[in-house]
Amino acid sequence: FVRVMATVEELKLRVRELENELIKCKQRQCAAEDADSRQAPHRQKIDKMSAEVVDSNPYRKDIKKKSLSHMYQQKIRTYTVAVVGVGGVGSVTAEMLTRCGIGKLLLFDYDKVELANMNRLFFQPHQAGLSKVEAAEHTLRDINPDVAFETHNYNITTMDNFTHFMDRISHGGLEEGKPVDLVLSCVDNFEARMAINTACNELGQIWMESGVSENAVSGHIQLINPGETACFACAPPLVVAANIDEKTLKREGVCAASLPTTMGVVAGILVQNVLKYLLKFGTVSYYLGYNAMQDFFPTMAMKANPQCSDYHCRRQQEEYKRKEAERPKDEVVEVEEEVVHEDNEWGIELVSEVTDAELQAASGLVPDLPEGITVAYTIPDKVKGGDTVEDTDQSLDELMAQMRKM
Amino acid sequence: FVRVMATVEELKLRVRELENELIKCKQRQCAAEDADSRQAPHRQKIDKMSAEVVDSNPYRKDIKKKSLSHMYQQKIRTYTVAVVGVGGVGSVTAEMLTRCGIGKLLLFDYDKVELANMNRLFFQPHQAGLSKVEAAEHTLRDINPDVAFETHNYNITTMDNFTHFMDRISHGGLEEGKPVDLVLSCVDNFEARMAINTACNELGQIWMESGVSENAVSGHIQLINPGETACFACAPPLVVAANIDEKTLKREGVCAASLPTTMGVVAGILVQNVLKYLLKFGTVSYYLGYNAMQDFFPTMAMKANPQCSDYHCRRQQEEYKRKEAERPKDEVVEVEEEVVHEDNEWGIELVSEVTDAELQAASGLVPDLPEGITVAYTIPDKVKGGDTVEDTDQSLDELMAQMRKM
Repeated sequence: FVRVMATVEELKLRVRELENELIKCKQRQCAAEDADSRQAPHRQKIDKMSAEVVDSNPYRKDIKKKSLSHMYQQKIRTYTVAVVGVGGVGSVTAEMLTRCGIGKLLLFDYDKVELANMNRLFFQPHQAGLSKVEAAEHTLRDINPDVAFETHNYNITTMDNFTHFMDRISHGGLEEGKPVDLVLSCVDNFEARMAINTACNELGQIWMESGVSENAVSGHIQLINPGETACFACAPPLVVAANIDEKTLKREGVCAASLPTTMGVVAGILVQNVLKYLLKFGTVSYYLGYNAMQDFFPTMAMKANPQCSDYHCRRQQEEYKRKEAERPKDEVVEVEEEVVHEDNEWGIELVSEVTDAELQAASGLVPDLPEGITVAYTIPDKVKGGDTVEDTDQSLDELMAQMRKM
Repeated sequence: FVRVMATVEELKLRVRELENELIKCKQRQCAAEDADSRQAPHRQKIDKMSAEVVDSNPYRKDIKKKSLSHMYQQKIRTYTVAVVGVGGVGSVTAEMLTRCGIGKLLLFDYDKVELANMNRLFFQPHQAGLSKVEAAEHTLRDINPDVAFETHNYNITTMDNFTHFMDRISHGGLEEGKPVDLVLSCVDNFEARMAINTACNELGQIWMESGVSENAVSGHIQLINPGETACFACAPPLVVAANIDEKTLKREGVCAASLPTTMGVVAGILVQNVLKYLLKFGTVSYYLGYNAMQDFFPTMAMKANPQCSDYHCRRQQEEYKRKEAERPKDEVVEVEEEVVHEDNEWGIELVSEVTDAELQAASGLVPDLPEGITVAYTIPDKVKGGDTVEDTDQSLDELMAQMRKM
């Protein structure tokens, strides 16, 4: 207790120091700027939302009509989301959540902003050299000071950082000590996805995966509810960056193939599904792909694999089964029926099927791919009924083994 | 003790706030004081692109692999695009084109940035009060000084401005005197869309339409090639804001229903199709819808209406027929066959059909709509074969008459 009181005294001292420095700085600024009447002042935090319809009120409410907007602005403030990876998809994801008025954002990344990132949205040239989480927090706080930010400038895959990451996911909620509501994976490599997967399986934490193919013309999002849907170890991701590790990818400049368009669409469908999940409206997609060449958006659902290599995934599956069995029957009505192909041991299934007409309409060029890159969403030659999506010569086991070698 | 800990948390928060304010203050001071070695210099224009793979080169080329990226960066610099409407969709559209390295951008808008716009992407609170085109140009020039910008802070629907708008569309290309390559409609009202439609029909200018429904949970993009596909006067848009004019919309705050997610997705699919069209890769969609509630993306094509009320549309149709007839037969192979339903006088057809499985998977909640708003992309109850999309009690004529009254 004495130590804590000492801390309080130290903090008070620090606050006073900072306040004094700030006053001095503002005086110097005024002297330097003289009277710049054009620049509008930055918005201050808003403690209580007003529903007043005036142009200056970012939370203004439409009086006559019930809008989705006001409904979500009231509720969204109570939620916490962790965004892992603040690159092409993650930065836009964080901006969208900030502008929607999320309660708290946790940002994890260990990269620095580079000029080569300017072919994606969000970061600006003058931020080159800053850490991505620092630059992002600065911009986002400016956009919406009502959001609480917590940033971690480290690689989640190292042992110590992973432990800390797990701790923040399970205790870093808006109300400190509570878990976050959702984890979003916006990383660009297998190892980091696996780390998030491991953490979320152990914690039983629902998360959403996102990805853009190396040639930037396809992407996907996926909802993972440990025990219910396939985790990242249950089935390999559909975009397989075979035999290319993260360093090679970066060194050889494949990341220069980013398109702000593809990144923007993936971030948009990701955050839209986050809103639908948190605010309970519409239908949350289990898996939604985006094939930019053909404007094709496949959806599907993948059940958890009983033979998954992750112990905690198998444990969560048992837990899920137990809970499902305990649930009163009238609740079950909401669950969508899933038809699994008989000889489909992985439980992979197409929810929306592709018709011949769709195939014909979408028959476009296959993109020119760098060596070793396989594309996810080119439309298969023959899709009939409930066939499985997996249609390569390699078995899932072989694919997984390949990815582990990376 | 709990209270003391709360105090500690409060103090820490205050310290962080003050530190942030101090950083901002110092930055402003630096900017004002000028002798500024700390702030990174803004990037200068690059006259010749280098393919060197270094982090500081935004146009760096991947040496070993041919990437889409380098291909598009070389070609995109030669094109000019006009963006009409720099709001939720238009601003992000302009940012994406800027980051892709478009040659020239013409921006048209007459609105000012408001704090109420902060629930969409792009604009920042400190820009409140500035004209949208001015604020956008400032941000975009900073992101990529290689783009040529031309901004017009006026309403294109007034007589004088419309004449000037026509002139800039037909002479404002990268090489002055040449027409722009593409016009993008990112406006939010019927009158402005009609003005763009009239101008493009008269000039034979290809353009793309975009829109987001008033409740922000659906949107669309549409390619209009005068004489070939349906123009805006040939068939009413699928999102019908019946009996609500622009002023009512704004006064009653319906625009507060914007979601940055929907805006981001629509801008993303729009610019992706711009890239595909200009750089000739993939398949350009004639019409692509986005139903955010159900993650449903319908595509279709609409032929021009021989009874269109726009004289120039009918003239372009004659021109198009003449050119088609003159074209050597071996070229015709590329044209997709279009099957039109027999009793479908408008030539509206579904290119991709909806299967029963898709319908079942996508059966979600119908959004709570404000009075007078009809939603575009809820999946019809019965879709079989080549049925038309239009399935209301009102005839197309009645709908068009309704919209003209606005």
